[in-house]
Amino acid sequence: MRELLEAVAAGELTPAEAESALSGYATTGAGRFDAAREDRSGVPEAVLGTGKTADEIADLAATALETTGRAIVTRIDAAGAAAVQRELSESAPDATVRWDERANWLVATAPDFERPDVDAGVGVVTAGTSDAVPAGEAAMIAREMGADVTRIDDVGVASLARTVDAVDRLRGQDVLVVAAGREGALPTVVAGLVDTPVIGLPVSTGYGHGGEGEAALSGMLQSCTALSVVNVDAGFTAGTQAGLIARQVAAPRANE
Amino acid sequence: MRELLEAVAAGELTPAEAESALSGYATTGAGRFDAAREDRSGVPEAVLGTGKTADEIADLAATALETTGRAIVTRIDAAGAAAVQRELSESAPDATVRWDERANWLVATAPDFERPDVDAGVGVVTAGTSDAVPAGEAAMIAREMGADVTRIDDVGVASLARTVDAVDRLRGQDVLVVAAGREGALPTVVAGLVDTPVIGLPVSTGYGHGGEGEAALSGMLQSCTALSVVNVDAGFTAGTQAGLIARQVAAPRANE
Amino acid sequence: MRELLEAVAAGELTPAEAESALSGYATTGAGRFDAAREDRSGVPEAVLGTGKTADEIADLAATALETTGRAIVTRIDAAGAAAVQRELSESAPDATVRWDERANWLVATAPDFERPDVDAGVGVVTAGTSDAVPAGEAAMIAREMGADVTRIDDVGVASLARTVDAVDRLRGQDVLVVAAGREGALPTVVAGLVDTPVIGLPVSTGYGHGGEGEAALSGMLQSCTALSVVNVDAGFTAGTQAGLIARQVAAPRANE
Amino acid sequence: MRELLEAVAAGELTPAEAESALSGYATTGAGRFDAAREDRSGVPEAVLGTGKTADEIADLAATALETTGRAIVTRIDAAGAAAVQRELSESAPDATVRWDERANWLVATAPDFERPDVDAGVGVVTAGTSDAVPAGEAAMIAREMGADVTRIDDVGVASLARTVDAVDRLRGQDVLVVAAGREGALPTVVAGLVDTPVIGLPVSTGYGHGGEGEAALSGMLQSCTALSVVNVDAGFTAGTQAGLIARQVAAPRANE
Amino acid sequence: MRELLEAVAAGELTPAEAESALSGYATTGAGRFDAAREDRSGVPEAVLGTGKTADEIADLAATALETTGRAIVTRIDAAGAAAVQRELSESAPDATVRWDERANWLVATAPDFERPDVDAGVGVVTAGTSDAVPAGEAAMIAREMGADVTRIDDVGVASLARTVDAVDRLRGQDVLVVAAGREGALPTVVAGLVDTPVIGLPVSTGYGHGGEGEAALSGMLQSCTALSVVNVDAGFTAGTQAGLIARQVAAPRANE
Amino acid sequence: MRELLEAVAAGELTPAEAESALSGYATTGAGRFDAAREDRSGVPEAVLGTGKTADEIADLAATALETTGRAIVTRIDAAGAAAVQRELSESAPDATVRWDERANWLVATAPDFERPDVDAGVGVVTAGTSDAVPAGEAAMIAREMGADVTRIDDVGVASLARTVDAVDRLRGQDVLVVAAGREGALPTVVAGLVDTPVIGLPVSTGYGHGGEGEAALSGMLQSCTALSVVNVDAGFTAGTQAGLIARQVAAPRANE
Amino acid sequence: MRELLEAVAAGELTPAEAESALSGYATTGAGRFDAAREDRSGVPEAVLGTGKTADEIADLAATALETTGRAIVTRIDAAGAAAVQRELSESAPDATVRWDERANWLVATAPDFERPDVDAGVGVVTAGTSDAVPAGEAAMIAREMGADVTRIDDVGVASLARTVDAVDRLRGQDVLVVAAGREGALPTVVAGLVDTPVIGLPVSTGYGHGGEGEAALSGMLQSCTALSVVNVDAGFTAGTQAGLIARQVAAPRANE
Amino acid sequence: MRELLEAVAAGELTPAEAESALSGYATTGAGRFDAAREDRSGVPEAVLGTGKTADEIADLAATALETTGRAIVTRIDAAGAAAVQRELSESAPDATVRWDERANWLVATAPDFERPDVDAGVGVVTAGTSDAVPAGEAAMIAREMGADVTRIDDVGVASLARTVDAVDRLRGQDVLVVAAGREGALPTVVAGLVDTPVIGLPVSTGYGHGGEGEAALSGMLQSCTALSVVNVDAGFTAGTQAGLIARQVAAPRANE
Repeated sequence: MRELLEAVAAGELTPAEAESALSGYATTGAGRFDAAREDRSGVPEAVLGTGKTADEIADLAATALETTGRAIVTRIDAAGAAAVQRELSESAPDATVRWDERANWLVATAPDFERPDVDAGVGVVTAGTSDAVPAGEAAMIAREMGADVTRIDDVGVASLARTVDAVDRLRGQDVLVVAAGREGALPTVVAGLVDTPVIGLPVSTGYGHGGEGEAALSGMLQSCTALSVVNVDAGFTAGTQAGLIARQVAAPRANE
Repeated sequence: MRELLEAVAAGELTPAEAESALSGYATTGAGRFDAAREDRSGVPEAVLGTGKTADEIADLAATALETTGRAIVTRIDAAGAAAVQRELSESAPDATVRWDERANWLVATAPDFERPDVDAGVGVVTAGTSDAVPAGEAAMIAREMGADVTRIDDVGVASLARTVDAVDRLRGQDVLVVAAGREGALPTVVAGLVDTPVIGLPVSTGYGHGGEGEAALSGMLQSCTALSVVNVDAGFTAGTQAGLIARQVAAPRANE
Repeated sequence: MRELLEAVAAGELTPAEAESALSGYATTGAGRFDAAREDRSGVPEAVLGTGKTADEIADLAATALETTGRAIVTRIDAAGAAAVQRELSESAPDATVRWDERANWLVATAPDFERPDVDAGVGVVTAGTSDAVPAGEAAMIAREMGADVTRIDDVGVASLARTVDAVDRLRGQDVLVVAAGREGALPTVVAGLVDTPVIGLPVSTGYGHGGEGEAALSGMLQSCTALSVVNVDAGFTAGTQAGLIARQVAAPRANE
Repeated sequence: MRELLEAVAAGELTPAEAESALSGYATTGAGRFDAAREDRSGVPEAVLGTGKTADEIADLAATALETTGRAIVTRIDAAGAAAVQRELSESAPDATVRWDERANWLVATAPDFERPDVDAGVGVVTAGTSDAVPAGEAAMIAREMGADVTRIDDVGVASLARTVDAVDRLRGQDVLVVAAGREGALPTVVAGLVDTPVIGLPVSTGYGHGGEGEAALSGMLQSCTALSVVNVDAGFTAGTQAGLIARQVAAPRANE
Repeated sequence: MRELLEAVAAGELTPAEAESALSGYATTGAGRFDAAREDRSGVPEAVLGTGKTADEIADLAATALETTGRAIVTRIDAAGAAAVQRELSESAPDATVRWDERANWLVATAPDFERPDVDAGVGVVTAGTSDAVPAGEAAMIAREMGADVTRIDDVGVASLARTVDAVDRLRGQDVLVVAAGREGALPTVVAGLVDTPVIGLPVSTGYGHGGEGEAALSGMLQSCTALSVVNVDAGFTAGTQAGLIARQVAAPRANE
Repeated sequence: MRELLEAVAAGELTPAEAESALSGYATTGAGRFDAAREDRSGVPEAVLGTGKTADEIADLAATALETTGRAIVTRIDAAGAAAVQRELSESAPDATVRWDERANWLVATAPDFERPDVDAGVGVVTAGTSDAVPAGEAAMIAREMGADVTRIDDVGVASLARTVDAVDRLRGQDVLVVAAGREGALPTVVAGLVDTPVIGLPVSTGYGHGGEGEAALSGMLQSCTALSVVNVDAGFTAGTQAGLIARQVAAPRANE
Repeated sequence: MRELLEAVAAGELTPAEAESALSGYATTGAGRFDAAREDRSGVPEAVLGTGKTADEIADLAATALETTGRAIVTRIDAAGAAAVQRELSESAPDATVRWDERANWLVATAPDFERPDVDAGVGVVTAGTSDAVPAGEAAMIAREMGADVTRIDDVGVASLARTVDAVDRLRGQDVLVVAAGREGALPTVVAGLVDTPVIGLPVSTGYGHGGEGEAALSGMLQSCTALSVVNVDAGFTAGTQAGLIARQVAAPRANE
Repeated sequence: MRELLEAVAAGELTPAEAESALSGYATTGAGRFDAAREDRSGVPEAVLGTGKTADEIADLAATALETTGRAIVTRIDAAGAAAVQRELSESAPDATVRWDERANWLVATAPDFERPDVDAGVGVVTAGTSDAVPAGEAAMIAREMGADVTRIDDVGVASLARTVDAVDRLRGQDVLVVAAGREGALPTVVAGLVDTPVIGLPVSTGYGHGGEGEAALSGMLQSCTALSVVNVDAGFTAGTQAGLIARQVAAPRANE
């Protein structure tokens, strides 16, 4: 600890870096950032944009970048993305910023940040274009966890030939995240066609009875195939679960 | 009316036949029997066994047979079926009685009863064996309405090859009733493969969240195909709707 | 295939037309357009305006027109309709555009497009003026599928004489779509009066408990008549189901 | 109070009669009996059979009879009715006992009991035979409150002519209780035909989605007519509300 | 009919008055106005402002005034009220317009319109200030139906003394409408204190579980007193039901 | 630890007593018994009878008695109580067993067991007799935790005078558990009358919409008074929460 | 009373102070203010900002300050706070105003107002930053009731070490309010670690199935620890319940 | 195919073996057995005992044994197990039968059956004894799929030390199935402690609001950790998903 404090005194370490090394947390104006999460649970801490002001997001993103070399923000809108870019252009001008306007995520990395490399394949599958947002979130975080991510899009069961045509690509993955809204039948059909683990990701499309993803969710929970499920629109959760499976595939633990 | 009463006086008509001819109703100890329903709405009146005693069922069945030449009972158990057979062996010893122990229906017909003959095909499709009861109910009533009924069983989507193998048989019908429980995906997949009208029939299998047919029902309501739906386990409703469509196919009305 | 490509090279076919002829799909900036849907399942592909930008709608509509000779858009607002009209005035200046501001649909057709002609009658019935949007959607798509559509409006059961007065018009159709909100009793009353197949279309009027169409939907599912049902406000689904029945009535398939 | 106690001492009053005169309550082994309820709120206290043993019911019924001259029991089964009859044959051998096996109520009265006489008419209406239990409960309690009760049965809307035929009888009442299960449309249709206050009584028939009376209840709550509603199967509540209205009709209070 | 047409020709009757006299309906640009409703069911037709444009409301209100001498609009906002006032200042400059900005209703009457006079008292009771909107709606329509309406406000059970203090005023009415949100306990407490019929009116206050009036509604349905209930915020329904009871109290029908 | 093992060897300690002293747990054939729970969280471990065989209950009760000097069993039926008494008559013949047949609990204590003595008052209040089971459970466990428990019964709001009459007794407690079913209004009325903390205990009476305690629960959650709530029928939870408050009242902790 | 009126006449008492002393209520343009609530039930009356205009809030706040020396407003936005400050700068220029912009409350006190002093500790605990609003409401009102309030923040179970590190601070309180959204596990974990009474406060974070606090609420109701619960986001209720417990701890009542 | 038929003719193959080799299905009196499921989707076909008679189960189990060398039955009761044992003692006397009376499964294997061997570890974790049934089902099927299964029991969060003590065993697995009922907090706490993929398995314990596993399910879906979930009591699904992940860990597929 003495060393850390001397490094801070010498300007070699920012106070945030030191706090996070000591306690696992960095305190920001907008709350604490759990810098140790990735070490503990394998999942990088991300900033959820929903319900935060643009300034709060920018503040947390800058801290994330400073303490872990990377900032991951989900459900961020244009104003939030602009605020982060403005903030980082000052505090971390050499950072690389990627913003996916459609799937609403932003990832910034320091020049020396090295993303983990996990030798396993995650397939992210959609029934149609309206599944793009949660599927994009899932793909992003699985990639940030190091997996080799493949997108297999627009294979919904209303036009079954599309689904069947995709079988080889589906079978070539180590784990699949399958996103579908409305009646949510795609994960069931896919899981009946492959022997890969499938994670169902219900999407909040649909209206009337069973709308907002409830029909898709309950259909996936009732599936007679070996499917596990995440909450409606929970692309981040599906992607991290797939990422953890990929890590395990690449580096098995038990029976060592 | 005078004629009717004279026929009763002469013993040529039973009082029930006369009442039903006059008012469309026959009064029994267990309630009124809507003998005119078939003329008015194309659907033969049936006796719902649920919530009635064996004696009440037998009483209504005998009245139905007497006034319309046929008795249709649904959701009847073994005790009910025995009571009907006992009753009819006395009041109508020459009637023919068919009882489907599995699908829980009973149909009795007088020797001179002629079932309507509707030149159109109704396909009744099941995902698996647990759909047999409502599918059997649907098939029975469509047949009693005169349609040419074909059963296409065990084509659930968990084993997709079975579904695809059945496509030609599915396409050869004028209307399809497709029964499925759990996630209820089969009607959606079928409706995407054929250009025949499909009526989804959700089945009360399944457990936990979305169980008792709720997931199947809401999935069918959310289907992105041109599907209409009936309530959970409502095989009788699905079959009568299919029967009405078959009648219309066989004898179009508009634009005559 | 060679022919197609030569036609493209010769400028006789646009790339979208060729792609759609080869794969059944045309790729646009806003997603894939399922040009083969009508052949496969009897239902023309439509563009759902909800959740798309005006530009995306215009892009998809132009592709639909180019590949199938017709563009059908539902749930389109004024901005969307303006964008489509602007786009088509350039890419297809001789197309005919109809826009129903109240029922929120737009249909554009190429000069040489021939709508199918189905010799069967579809009645679209409303309880009151608040049912106009889904009923309008149902009527439009049934018409586009070629059926002879009749509107029977404002016959809700709160003023029963209106319902009874309409009986002859109701009986003269091959299939009826009956729209009703609040308690949704009209389809039940109608189905008790006619021997035509009736499709119940619940409408999202109403407030408090059972509001947003839930009371109407569950009432129709519980109906003791031979009713099939679609989801709340699913006018497009009801209309396509009626259209498929009309096609079958006009051109029976089984027992040929 | 002194007088009461002297009357008890003299054996002219039972302790239960005295307790109830003093406190409004009579204490029994099975709980307190609210003997003053009728004075306070116009509704006679009744014993709800559900969840009580036959002995407890008998005990409470005997106390009711002793303190108010009448015992009203609802939802009583055969065992309960037998126990009450056994008990009263000893403690009140000259009481008159009526038991409705179908509607599950029992009313016992002392020889000198005088039922109130309310000069107003309550119509109790059913859609079909499955509404008999709650309708019977409603009719019984309205009668016990003194109203002139008329039953109008089997007028469900699936066979609309029956409903219309009953209009004159419906219009001749001061208040109507209308019982209906499944989709529960009858009270709406009736309230559109008459200018009498209508109380909707949903019945727990039906199955699947909206079953157990939920569809009927929400449909009645959504009715666009001037309907008030009670809970599913709450025949006793509907009947007492009708009874209170009848009392008011017979003896107006305001503006005196 | 000839007379009517001659009166139109002579300018003594407007076409709308004539149409409404002949068919009970007047056709407007915004739909049909049910001018005969009051005769048939005792309830004056009202215009529901929700979901209509200001112009549509004004159009319907003018027709109502023209055909029945009175226009009643509920759930009308400031823009709607302004449009009605503008419209009537032209088409019916001598009409009297009352607008309740808080309870969101507007009533316009022709100079010669005579409100019915019903000799019975309706009490409209609130638990607190947040019940004012539906209670105001109920009071307005009961008054328009001719009843003598008394407001008894702010007697919620959280401060029980207030409730008890109001007992005499509560007992002096022929029928009570009791509005309450949150847990909705007031109607139960009131119905236990009086022998007047009570109509519970749940109000959509409250948040979290059971919010938006659901807790109040289900509590009133479960009440162990003789309570009937209307839907959440259905002040108009509660008021018309109370108005019908008041009419019956003032002019009994049965046993005449 | 050595000492403990020597005591076991010497027969001074049973193996279960030693295991529980070492690990806080005693292992039985029917699962682990959390003997240390009371030390850790202030709440004695109890055996929940639901879903266990009579033998399993008896086994766990014997272990509880052996390791903590007391066995508390809830939701136990007659068969379970008999099994416990049989088992204890052998393994602990000098234990005292109390069994409440109505509230379904059983408490057995060793001769030398000393119940804690907490100098604070817990009032357990019921609306009516149907609240007896959960109220009895609450009273039992609060008493076993040492509180001075007072029962205040039958004070439901339908007969408000009873509630008001009880105010002094209600005010004299340190904490109140108030049980009520149906509409569950009593806790709200009580909390408006006293300045004591009130815990609402919803009871699973009631039927139809909001039945099985759901209306009572949501009403208590919506209460505008300072009420906290437990789940439906959770008498044990309400009683332990009251017991913990009583302990705190008797022996405050903060600011010492 | 004469004295009061003379004091008003002499200008020593405002009319509002006199009205509130006489009746417990002060009448304002925006409704009645329950000035006697604190005496009766131990909870100071607060103004709920939701659904009131800025002017109404200001009016009620001024009356509260005038009659009780303090105004407490919850769920107040910036406009409301500005209006109160403007109003009080005129009517009560020497009042002290505190406004918590994040937790949305405002408290104003007269110079001579003395907050009660309750010698007991209330801990207000949060799982994460998104729990800040209801937790802040709870802390504010417990403090205003006089308790010694400690905040223990950011101890959610996803990072369990944080929870365990807080145990000593948690154990040092007399009562705990524990706020948590999403799955709401924190109150259960805390209640398993301490022997202090815990009040669970579910927070309306989360999305999809179980979102808006429903999962947190039902999880807390199902907790196998001795937890009582308030409604979603009901920080005010949780805080007042904690305040009442603190009062009781500081000044026990029973067994005096 | 000729070979197969000759082998049947020669008695070297039973007809069922031949049918299953040809079509992937074996037809039994109780339905079709999907003998090819394991090849296609990696999951062995199992017989679900629920809703089948003992004879049907025995029939299907014998066919499974004959065609795949193993029969797996879930949710089987004592009568079913006896029937299977009776049947196999005749048709396959040398088979080994294991029956888990508590977790309700039965596995029979032919002497030459070789279970797959998957070199990866699956941990099956329970919160308490009431989770034993679904956890047992999960463990059984994961073992039958070849995984190395470890049980980690009784680590519920109400006694947090138990959870923390198990961390090393939890971390040593390749995938975890974590079963919990009531509030279902254990999977969240575990997933925060380890970097292994966790599958949440909600259990149908609990009563009142959120009972029957609904609170556990929605809590797991809301978890802020990287959790995927199966339906309530779906031990078989959780175990097969874990088995598929284990297979992938042992034999990665992508990036080969």
